[in-house]
Amino acid sequence: MTTSFIPPRRILMGPGPSDVPQRVLDAMARPTIGHLDPAFVDMMEQIKAMLRMAFQTQNALTFPVSAPGSAGMEMCFVNLVEPGDKVIVCKNGVFGGRMLENVKRCGGVPVIVDDAWGKPVDPNKVRDAFAANPDARVLAFVHAETSTGAQSDAATLARIAQEAGALTIMDCVTSLGGTPIHLDAWGIDAAYSGSQKCLSCTPGLSPVSFSERAVERIKARKTPVQSWFLDLNLVLGYWQSAGRRTYHHTAPINPMYGLHESLVILEEEGLENAWARHRAMHEALKAGLEGMGLRYVVDEAARLPQLNSIHVPEGVDEAAIRARLLNEFNLEIGAGLGDMAGKIWRIGLMGHSARQENVDYCLTALKACL
Amino acid sequence: MTTSFIPPRRILMGPGPSDVPQRVLDAMARPTIGHLDPAFVDMMEQIKAMLRMAFQTQNALTFPVSAPGSAGMEMCFVNLVEPGDKVIVCKNGVFGGRMLENVKRCGGVPVIVDDAWGKPVDPNKVRDAFAANPDARVLAFVHAETSTGAQSDAATLARIAQEAGALTIMDCVTSLGGTPIHLDAWGIDAAYSGSQKCLSCTPGLSPVSFSERAVERIKARKTPVQSWFLDLNLVLGYWQSAGRRTYHHTAPINPMYGLHESLVILEEEGLENAWARHRAMHEALKAGLEGMGLRYVVDEAARLPQLNSIHVPEGVDEAAIRARLLNEFNLEIGAGLGDMAGKIWRIGLMGHSARQENVDYCLTALKACL
Repeated sequence: MTTSFIPPRRILMGPGPSDVPQRVLDAMARPTIGHLDPAFVDMMEQIKAMLRMAFQTQNALTFPVSAPGSAGMEMCFVNLVEPGDKVIVCKNGVFGGRMLENVKRCGGVPVIVDDAWGKPVDPNKVRDAFAANPDARVLAFVHAETSTGAQSDAATLARIAQEAGALTIMDCVTSLGGTPIHLDAWGIDAAYSGSQKCLSCTPGLSPVSFSERAVERIKARKTPVQSWFLDLNLVLGYWQSAGRRTYHHTAPINPMYGLHESLVILEEEGLENAWARHRAMHEALKAGLEGMGLRYVVDEAARLPQLNSIHVPEGVDEAAIRARLLNEFNLEIGAGLGDMAGKIWRIGLMGHSARQENVDYCLTALKACL
Repeated sequence: MTTSFIPPRRILMGPGPSDVPQRVLDAMARPTIGHLDPAFVDMMEQIKAMLRMAFQTQNALTFPVSAPGSAGMEMCFVNLVEPGDKVIVCKNGVFGGRMLENVKRCGGVPVIVDDAWGKPVDPNKVRDAFAANPDARVLAFVHAETSTGAQSDAATLARIAQEAGALTIMDCVTSLGGTPIHLDAWGIDAAYSGSQKCLSCTPGLSPVSFSERAVERIKARKTPVQSWFLDLNLVLGYWQSAGRRTYHHTAPINPMYGLHESLVILEEEGLENAWARHRAMHEALKAGLEGMGLRYVVDEAARLPQLNSIHVPEGVDEAAIRARLLNEFNLEIGAGLGDMAGKIWRIGLMGHSARQENVDYCLTALKACL
């Protein structure tokens, strides 16, 4: 007979999920109500409003996809890319590569702008790509590369796309709530994020936002969207204002309670204060890490405060250290992915994890293990 | 400033979500750990084992999709249907219609077997469809039509498909845990369900199971799966046995805790006991409803115990009654969908909602309102 699962208590300083505040966990445990209940519909309107605050947008079509960030990514691509559409995809880590996969599976024609892992996207290469491909309809890039900790200059990249008459899809899974995002001021047309990073909700939901230009593009499609679950034409009917809601799928009720609470916490702190806290905790962690002789992977100018990638010192068995941190200190930090597997650690300071006590604990534990 | 959301306490007797036991809600609130944490990986193995018990299968590839039932449905179709594949789709309600949409979006060639809403799928029509289309590669049908409350004869339908050399995809969103399912004995190749029906977990996860024949078909595909998020070739690497896990997406950690607990509860009760309880509560509800002069939509032989569809009496404003039940009694029952909107009510007796106190409460409330 299987017994109930009692998870260990961990301190989550990997690339996500981050530590979830007790208030959010408590919200998850409130009684389930129906997805068409007027009380649920009202709560959803509040989530949409708070997500607009977090994304810094007025976009009407701003809501959480009922699935993880990978599904939010796929929603952007399957709706905005039609077979034959040329898409400039910036690739400087795992998630740019995943965008490329999405373009191919939608029948899009990718134009790849390659940058080294750990570097930001080079705007000059993007300009060149548009000059060589004036018919490109979409630019796709990752704002905060979770696989490396590099941040790209979203404002500049989006401006280049606008000048070329293309739409912009931005991955901000790791940046939302942690580092400045201004969807409207930058002119981003589609953005997707995750609940489990700087929002510090549990994983499983993907906040997205689409501009009016994006909605027009979707409405003008010549071919049907290949996914039923992610078809915005259908989802629109579900997420549009209260009263006229049509059934599409059953939303994850309790995880939505959790997301609501995490956004209430963000609103209480203030978005700019949250950004400043992530920056301050990064400075504190950086001072400690550099004091131990550890070196950052990403150049200072492009460094994400909430994801600190550091080189594993020569001769150190990185997996053994992570196992010790987990088993002896209940501390989770992240390994490298892809080309960086075995070579780097990724230390997250996301959302509720971006606290002085976590910084101190992580430095103490690392010192003990190295 | 937005305040925390405190949901009303409802009694959920619609078509899902069903009442969630406090044990499951408590599990949802346990501390979040990482999706690559060995403790999480172990728990996942337990979930897979318990799902095999619920599905009555030995299928290795049995796991919860990190998204609602609609995504589980889509996972079955995008993996098993290639462009040009002929698929016999049985349509006797909303969800058969949704299967048809999925076939079209995969580039499949649908052959529709139509039955009236409220009737089970007619095996003779399916036989005729295979006779006329011996090249059909897949049969798709809904075991328990949530839109009408009709149950189809899955064993017979699957046998017809096997004799024709086709694979079978079965929707058992509303049946899993509530009414007998025997994937292996019946020879079903792909099945998907939902967490929020007879398992009484919160909505948002979709248990699925694939036979060896299905896995072979997927591995032999000539074209890539159109969805990245739902590509079983990638998901396989993620869900395969502990130790060799590769990163695919971040699983919804806390909802998985909830699903684990709901399956532990099912195991404690015993699957056959759970089926018998659903049947007994249905008999009790039926006696009460018929005593009030209400008539069932579905013929007795095809009636689902866990979803009771009844005709709205002549001259009654059905939406007004549902609003009174919700506002005065905190009781949710379901409306009709599609062709049956405004004409029927759907009263769910799913999972934790299939209790004598719920039956009594529902009958008392209905009597007060009618």
